[in-house]
Amino acid sequence: MIAIIAGTNRPDAVSLQIAQLYHQLLAERGATSQILDLNQLPPDFAFSALYANAGKNPEVNKLNQLMTEAEKYVFVIPEYNGSFPGVLKTFIDGLPYPNPMRQKVAALVGLGSGVQGGVLALSHFNDILSYLNVETLALRVKLANINKNLADGQIHNHLYNELLNTQADRLVAYAPALVQV
Amino acid sequence: MIAIIAGTNRPDAVSLQIAQLYHQLLAERGATSQILDLNQLPPDFAFSALYANAGKNPEVNKLNQLMTEAEKYVFVIPEYNGSFPGVLKTFIDGLPYPNPMRQKVAALVGLGSGVQGGVLALSHFNDILSYLNVETLALRVKLANINKNLADGQIHNHLYNELLNTQADRLVAYAPALVQV
Amino acid sequence: MIAIIAGTNRPDAVSLQIAQLYHQLLAERGATSQILDLNQLPPDFAFSALYANAGKNPEVNKLNQLMTEAEKYVFVIPEYNGSFPGVLKTFIDGLPYPNPMRQKVAALVGLGSGVQGGVLALSHFNDILSYLNVETLALRVKLANINKNLADGQIHNHLYNELLNTQADRLVAYAPALVQV
Amino acid sequence: MIAIIAGTNRPDAVSLQIAQLYHQLLAERGATSQILDLNQLPPDFAFSALYANAGKNPEVNKLNQLMTEAEKYVFVIPEYNGSFPGVLKTFIDGLPYPNPMRQKVAALVGLGSGVQGGVLALSHFNDILSYLNVETLALRVKLANINKNLADGQIHNHLYNELLNTQADRLVAYAPALVQV
Repeated sequence: MIAIIAGTNRPDAVSLQIAQLYHQLLAERGATSQILDLNQLPPDFAFSALYANAGKNPEVNKLNQLMTEAEKYVFVIPEYNGSFPGVLKTFIDGLPYPNPMRQKVAALVGLGSGVQGGVLALSHFNDILSYLNVETLALRVKLANINKNLADGQIHNHLYNELLNTQADRLVAYAPALVQV
Repeated sequence: MIAIIAGTNRPDAVSLQIAQLYHQLLAERGATSQILDLNQLPPDFAFSALYANAGKNPEVNKLNQLMTEAEKYVFVIPEYNGSFPGVLKTFIDGLPYPNPMRQKVAALVGLGSGVQGGVLALSHFNDILSYLNVETLALRVKLANINKNLADGQIHNHLYNELLNTQADRLVAYAPALVQV
Repeated sequence: MIAIIAGTNRPDAVSLQIAQLYHQLLAERGATSQILDLNQLPPDFAFSALYANAGKNPEVNKLNQLMTEAEKYVFVIPEYNGSFPGVLKTFIDGLPYPNPMRQKVAALVGLGSGVQGGVLALSHFNDILSYLNVETLALRVKLANINKNLADGQIHNHLYNELLNTQADRLVAYAPALVQV
Repeated sequence: MIAIIAGTNRPDAVSLQIAQLYHQLLAERGATSQILDLNQLPPDFAFSALYANAGKNPEVNKLNQLMTEAEKYVFVIPEYNGSFPGVLKTFIDGLPYPNPMRQKVAALVGLGSGVQGGVLALSHFNDILSYLNVETLALRVKLANINKNLADGQIHNHLYNELLNTQADRLVAYAPALVQV
């Protein structure tokens, strides 16, 4: 199972639409995936599920369970203030130890309303995944001017669709067992 | 007034001790400062003070007010998973628009229990401040092996104390009005 | 004197045109500047002016002398392979020790033929300047699609001109003596 | 064949010793490797093998041929001024197009005389490899205080040896064909 993390708690987020689109791309390749919408986190999770409270929040435990069961990950990351959303990092900070993503593989999709498509957000997040020993696909997909390029839940930009398809192909083809040393 | 942000919501955080120590460094230089402890945030702030709820949480408004009144900033940033804590970024994501730190100046202090002292955390955070048009002092102080180097609220490491003092000198001497173009 | 470094050795580089344009922006503000074109480096400088040969290449010594005399810096940085040009970094690696830019101030201008305008290049380069204790203006100007936006040595993009002017204002206004602690 | 790039042109570089040590690690795993010592580059390569002169320098062509034949890469990267050496990036900037490393895999080893072990250098370099579509192993090995930890061509630090061995295992086990979509 591939976990697709919609990386913000903003209601009606564009990231969720991209997550749903990615879910479809994976389905077309015969891969099962499940969307984790960070908007579904319990509102107080930064306090009720971290540090001394780690493991004590049943709703967060359910999400962490999905993160543990998943074999691969897609992170859909909107650009907030030149980086990833704080809520996404807090979710990562609250994952159980040892980190359930360790030595698995992740694909990164950035998006933004501006011209960058989250390029710094993805660079920062790749550093975090490297720290956690999560293999990250080289191809970071950056969706800029997202409001112009997304309509009716579909990307209307040939290059972006090509990149998303290539990334999905690579993620599905990736054989994590071979790097599980 | 200089705002010193203790960048985590972890109870009894080392970051808070460093913030208190920095408060003293500034007092010795005749500079008034105030500590903002992110552990004092309302537990649900990531939901109750962002997006449609921006400005609606009185407790967060008080902190944002301090961020607005401050003329300079010190960010004390513990390394969490190879970057800054998600809670710190969420706090930044919830600041009012336009950002109250714009064209002011910030000093960065990183800390960690390992050998890095938050070097990547500070690099990432500098990118965010640059995005927000906040001048950041070149000297990023990185306190590694913090558990070994901190006791009784004091740093017991000559180099680290020297760096903190130099940074505090520069922060106090910095004349933001001159760059307010 | 402000040194403007055209950050590549590519002949007829667009970076040199941007450097000339910046020279004019500074002149309009009454500030003297001098362009250092890295295409003028002796071809073997990476070997004849580094390590045991540091200080032995008279042509490089002349450039280093300008770097020493300068009080402020503008780095014009084209994006090469997702970062700054290797030649620019080699020039930095060959500067005398202690680094002549120490505790002075720099402004960063990135440019690229693609949509990013060197955003990662500037992030990486800011890390280097921080390491060298060079204050870097928060405003990193990123000139994307440069081939479309530059003609006859002028930028034809309102936002870009505004950003360049704001940055030049701040660089000229910056009072380094105040942070020379 | 695995290419091991000793990432500096400094004579008698520690990086070359680490490259030789890595060569041995790979040999123990039955993997053929070849060291590319950037000190062997023709001194004027930044001018004689880039831009209009690309492909015209026979000595550089030989190195580029090795980069093309290699199926995997190890980059040994000393920290210079808070990042990778300029010469290493210039070598990358001069590689033929399309880049011969595309969709192959690389392992990163950083080293430094200080406490960081090149952590920022590796982060920056990972961004470059991502840009070039080169898969990079999550595990970035950082060798700090290298002068203390290296003697007689051997690393005398249990953790460092463990990390190097784990990384070598993963590099050898990595099956690039599976991600060649």
